[in-house]
Amino acid sequence: MIPNWLVQRAYLTPDKIALSFRDESWTFAELKEQSMRYARKMKANGLNEGDRIALLGSSNAEMVFIIHASMLLGLEIVMLNRRLTKQELAWQLDDSSAKAVIVSNELAEWIDVEGTHTILFTVLKKSEEKDFSVKGIWPSERTITIMYTSGTTGFPKGVRQTVGNHTSSALSSVLNLGLDEKDVWLCTMPLFHISGFSILVRSVLYGMEVRLYEKFEAVCVAKEIQTGSVTRMSVVSLMLNKILHELEKNGATAHPSFQTMLAGGGPVPVDYLERAQRLNIPVLQTYGMTETSSQTATLSSTDAIQKQGSAGKPLFFNEIKIKDVENAGEYGEVLIRGPHVTPGYIGRFEHTVPSIDGWLPTGDIGYVDEEGYLYIVDRRSDLIISGGENIYPAEIENVLAGHPKVLEAGVCGKEDAEWGSVPVAFIVCAGNLEAEELATFCSEHLARYKVPKEFQFVEKLPRNASNKLLRRELKEWLQA
Amino acid sequence: MIPNWLVQRAYLTPDKIALSFRDESWTFAELKEQSMRYARKMKANGLNEGDRIALLGSSNAEMVFIIHASMLLGLEIVMLNRRLTKQELAWQLDDSSAKAVIVSNELAEWIDVEGTHTILFTVLKKSEEKDFSVKGIWPSERTITIMYTSGTTGFPKGVRQTVGNHTSSALSSVLNLGLDEKDVWLCTMPLFHISGFSILVRSVLYGMEVRLYEKFEAVCVAKEIQTGSVTRMSVVSLMLNKILHELEKNGATAHPSFQTMLAGGGPVPVDYLERAQRLNIPVLQTYGMTETSSQTATLSSTDAIQKQGSAGKPLFFNEIKIKDVENAGEYGEVLIRGPHVTPGYIGRFEHTVPSIDGWLPTGDIGYVDEEGYLYIVDRRSDLIISGGENIYPAEIENVLAGHPKVLEAGVCGKEDAEWGSVPVAFIVCAGNLEAEELATFCSEHLARYKVPKEFQFVEKLPRNASNKLLRRELKEWLQA
Repeated sequence: MIPNWLVQRAYLTPDKIALSFRDESWTFAELKEQSMRYARKMKANGLNEGDRIALLGSSNAEMVFIIHASMLLGLEIVMLNRRLTKQELAWQLDDSSAKAVIVSNELAEWIDVEGTHTILFTVLKKSEEKDFSVKGIWPSERTITIMYTSGTTGFPKGVRQTVGNHTSSALSSVLNLGLDEKDVWLCTMPLFHISGFSILVRSVLYGMEVRLYEKFEAVCVAKEIQTGSVTRMSVVSLMLNKILHELEKNGATAHPSFQTMLAGGGPVPVDYLERAQRLNIPVLQTYGMTETSSQTATLSSTDAIQKQGSAGKPLFFNEIKIKDVENAGEYGEVLIRGPHVTPGYIGRFEHTVPSIDGWLPTGDIGYVDEEGYLYIVDRRSDLIISGGENIYPAEIENVLAGHPKVLEAGVCGKEDAEWGSVPVAFIVCAGNLEAEELATFCSEHLARYKVPKEFQFVEKLPRNASNKLLRRELKEWLQA
Repeated sequence: MIPNWLVQRAYLTPDKIALSFRDESWTFAELKEQSMRYARKMKANGLNEGDRIALLGSSNAEMVFIIHASMLLGLEIVMLNRRLTKQELAWQLDDSSAKAVIVSNELAEWIDVEGTHTILFTVLKKSEEKDFSVKGIWPSERTITIMYTSGTTGFPKGVRQTVGNHTSSALSSVLNLGLDEKDVWLCTMPLFHISGFSILVRSVLYGMEVRLYEKFEAVCVAKEIQTGSVTRMSVVSLMLNKILHELEKNGATAHPSFQTMLAGGGPVPVDYLERAQRLNIPVLQTYGMTETSSQTATLSSTDAIQKQGSAGKPLFFNEIKIKDVENAGEYGEVLIRGPHVTPGYIGRFEHTVPSIDGWLPTGDIGYVDEEGYLYIVDRRSDLIISGGENIYPAEIENVLAGHPKVLEAGVCGKEDAEWGSVPVAFIVCAGNLEAEELATFCSEHLARYKVPKEFQFVEKLPRNASNKLLRRELKEWLQA
């Protein structure tokens, strides 16, 4: 049993700043008041405790109110990724059986599913309010959020993230990063990803301000870091590089109060680390996934260069082991256990058990060195991480296979200076086919960031004896 | 399931300082190594996982090793109070059925129970070592410590404090107090009390140094606070006053890095608070008990004077309510709920249920103001808090009633400039009886701090219609 986060926080520190967005800010008491208002409006729109909704909006204050409103009312929130196509969103809406979709007006056109109960932000805002009794205590098992992530099959799975998952993740993190009453966490990560959402959770648990941006803007972000108006931030390498450039351009460094640059989505290039060090930015590289409600392991900034390429050690309440190995340094699948690991999925994967004896198989291949530091050497299902977004090759291959002229398709990641990695497709086709036609076809079915940046036409794909596609060989073709 | 505290901590931050005592210090790796050695020696002495031991020793490094050794081996530890009499200790040993008593040589004479398996610290140290397999994960329900506390009946009850209790207490506290990687917590509180023991728990969970003192020494403590060699400390008013005097005498103030003076055992006099403020010492008054594994509520230092007399607000994972009242300001019994509340007792009170629907009745009378701040107006069972030690009048009355010439006895607390409060006894006797004789008699049965400082001979005691002793009237007699 865990106290209702926002209710407890607004009781304990009502006058502390909870949220700032552009020129406005809200204390925890005000955040609760605003969120309660939206919750009563949701109630008036027929939503009740235990219902599941889907939510699609930009990262702004109203979105935060609606997220907290949903939690106050006791709803499960399917956090929709605004970069997806209509088709991808429709799939998730169908799979999740959401009772309603709450969508900001500017994104309304993306929800195009017949029979879906759609509530626009403006309509919600103008709704009447209906009182309800707020639960002061939540069971740990209660699902707070559902986030879709693809896997080996290429079919997105809706991952449940419970009160207990989110809470233990935030607690593990505080034992690792520390906490100061003047902390402000800058959030430019999408709220529909665990990297962004987890910042909102830390805010209510820690009594900490979130400085929210609608999108990443290197100039403004660098200024905040330089002046000390924020003390912590989550990034992917791409963003870190832009921030470093900006500070370097201005001959500036981070303010001494800046504590943590939490970098996810794969190792940070050593050049970035060295530049960050010169600018007084402590970079902590982290390894986590949707199924673990954010960080599982984090590398301290003092180890960053000496242990380059490592994802660090587990956070306090978490365990990591390598499957079926006996000695340090041996490769194997990375397994994760802890109170932050999802209890399971919804929809068509509802009966898929995510873990064995509590151990979540990540699909990632890695090893642990003599001192207990984790290294990831190969991502699950040849996962491509592009600017912090996870891209599963199988999902793109499935789409390509649907094109009438495509006989076979294989996708792998290609190193990219800006995005870290981008998807590239290898195609075996029947008849004439242009790359442009395939790109257009993909755009109709896949979020833009998933559309392959190159299409290479080949005679056959590399397969093993049991006909399994060897994506690692595709990578070798790229390098050749 | 929670990772074995010391094993996990020594893995995560092996080179951080864990403990310092006098001129020596130990990293977490060294603390684990030392403690494992003692654990293997305990194993060689016939102690096994699940066994219950009693432990009596002074606050020094060896005691800390033995405490951690007991946890590593999976023992339940009855933490014996070194201020008790032989008789009181014998009662607890009997009640707890401890398989062995581990006792430091200088305190060995206090363990005087036939048939008790006693292991002296020196003997343990010289023992052989026997290997065993350390559990990496603990169930939350596992009992770590048992501490005895008296209540309305005057019979000490052995309170179980589990892994989950201690862990959630430390986590709640970090969300309230924050955490800096340079934190050092000065411990001069007895380790056999939850106030001292909880510092050891925070140390392993936070990766924080404990600076341990054998006993409170105002001169040294003031110096540490002044130079910034410690950043946090737990005290009772008596100690705080001495520290303030020392700093004032030297014209010194606290170092800017000093963060928290956590003051338990009843409200701190406003004079102390004002002096502390002038010396840059943030005093946080706290309310807790053995049954709640340390703090339940804490008053922030910024509220200290404005909310004088308040115990503050609950820590994040805890709840406080006043029994059977509807409005703010109404008096009633204070009830506490949360993951830090004991699951129950051992020994003769094993079947006593400590809470109703998870709500622990404290016996204390209090109220919550309009803003949610808790005030304690009357302590449970007329509890007397003397220099931080809890004294239950019923326990002293029981002893006095055992004297052949005492017909009736009533005990209450009297305000005392040094100790906060001291016990005073009212006696109805048969025949001639001198105060001195009663004091000697009490000393044989009761720890020194419990022996009444005054004996007043009266003709009868104030009782209500059902013949219940009215201790509040005794207090009025004292004031008259």
